[in-house]
Amino acid sequence: MDIWLVDGNPAGAVPVTDRGLSYGDGLFETIAWRDNRPRFFDWHMERLAEGCRRLGFRCPAEKTLLSEMEAAAAGHADGTVKIIVTRGSGPRGYAAPRAPQPRRIVGYVRNTDAASSATGAGGITLRFCRTPISANPVLAGLKTLSRLDQVLARSEWQDPGIAEGLMQGPDGKVVCGTMSNVFLVKDRRLLTPDLTVCGVRGVMRRVVIETAQQLGIETAEVQLSRHDIMSAAELFVTNALIGLWPVAHCGRHAFEIGTVTTTLCRALQARGVTECAR
Amino acid sequence: MDIWLVDGNPAGAVPVTDRGLSYGDGLFETIAWRDNRPRFFDWHMERLAEGCRRLGFRCPAEKTLLSEMEAAAAGHADGTVKIIVTRGSGPRGYAAPRAPQPRRIVGYVRNTDAASSATGAGGITLRFCRTPISANPVLAGLKTLSRLDQVLARSEWQDPGIAEGLMQGPDGKVVCGTMSNVFLVKDRRLLTPDLTVCGVRGVMRRVVIETAQQLGIETAEVQLSRHDIMSAAELFVTNALIGLWPVAHCGRHAFEIGTVTTTLCRALQARGVTECAR
Repeated sequence: MDIWLVDGNPAGAVPVTDRGLSYGDGLFETIAWRDNRPRFFDWHMERLAEGCRRLGFRCPAEKTLLSEMEAAAAGHADGTVKIIVTRGSGPRGYAAPRAPQPRRIVGYVRNTDAASSATGAGGITLRFCRTPISANPVLAGLKTLSRLDQVLARSEWQDPGIAEGLMQGPDGKVVCGTMSNVFLVKDRRLLTPDLTVCGVRGVMRRVVIETAQQLGIETAEVQLSRHDIMSAAELFVTNALIGLWPVAHCGRHAFEIGTVTTTLCRALQARGVTECAR
Repeated sequence: MDIWLVDGNPAGAVPVTDRGLSYGDGLFETIAWRDNRPRFFDWHMERLAEGCRRLGFRCPAEKTLLSEMEAAAAGHADGTVKIIVTRGSGPRGYAAPRAPQPRRIVGYVRNTDAASSATGAGGITLRFCRTPISANPVLAGLKTLSRLDQVLARSEWQDPGIAEGLMQGPDGKVVCGTMSNVFLVKDRRLLTPDLTVCGVRGVMRRVVIETAQQLGIETAEVQLSRHDIMSAAELFVTNALIGLWPVAHCGRHAFEIGTVTTTLCRALQARGVTECAR
């Protein structure tokens, strides 16, 4: 059974007046819990704090969240921890309370379903989604609770052989996967979509960019078309729970799992992203 | 005190695993409760049903919602009723459960704050918001729980003298108010923004368009620029609770409350939109 704490107290429910429910007025983080600790916790906290700042409410203290994660994990060494922070309860209407009391919802989830998806030793199969991702620079980069785009994109396929779907912005540029960021290798450079207009700035995306730079691999955040994806020398997707999944197929097109991908996988393993060893 | 029913039972809370909270995966309706009945209930139900169809889960039966609204209103003749329908609970991850059990949350709110805003006999004051509204044709028209754009736009001002703010899409076209639809009169035609890419198809918007057509006023859904707004002969905003608010000012610019607006107000009153008599 999953264990949840609401504002520090074991609870399975939140008030119906919570603005997270009413208006998607909040943020979340999904964190790999490894060896009794949250992995890359500082970077998850950085994104959460930036989100709270941009949405305009107080971010819970790191120490509070950490102790609540430990309480929720309750001695389990490995799994997934989820933190939701909402603007708290309020009266009906979009106008936020003058002095919001943000609500913390912290849960431990034993089953790390994402990591257990059929990835295969030879890389995953990817598809393109028809559902576009909403463009809005004021929300771009954040992991907000307003995630219907991703829900609808993920509902486009049931085939368990397809591990992820790529989403495009209204302008047709490729932005991300439904639950991941995407990278490609072209002319030995590591390219990933620019996220100033839409998309979530994944923590593992940041780890990969930093790791690549440490390895001397040139990286850039750019606009990428569907053609750029299909003509890439190497292609992979990342998130905090799966680490890095090389892409072997997108539709009928096959991709090689090349040296940049395998070099990054090894370096990520050394940083504790043991999922890359699969 | 507000009264809420969750799946028909008096309850103040929903499970933390509800996808409405996790991902904004649901819809809502805010309905004027007048003379012990929901006003324009059929049209609220039509939009809710279309939303459920497009999001891909079963819409609750009209009869069920009606009896739950009556139970929540508990003998109060007037007020506001809110219906939230989510995809229900599910495991972590965007992928929806194969057989979702949609959750109904029905509440009665005594204080109709929107209608009590300082509208003044001479029309409201409007502003333009900086926060753009997200564009996504797959969600356009629906009143989903993913409403962070509106929350951030509404947070741009505290001045109680400003009743509403207009939002523009990424292309700069004017789409709607934070909680209302917008109409203008130009060359004796009644124009309102086309909502195929973003915005909510308000029930009162539909009432106004239908009423105008019955009165022989030519109407059209078109692309409107900020200049179109500022050069309008008449300007007003609408929603299910406020009815129709004439606009007297936008920034320093003053608008006349002209004959089309006053004619529509009278016709709306005759249809039970008594707020227009203020």
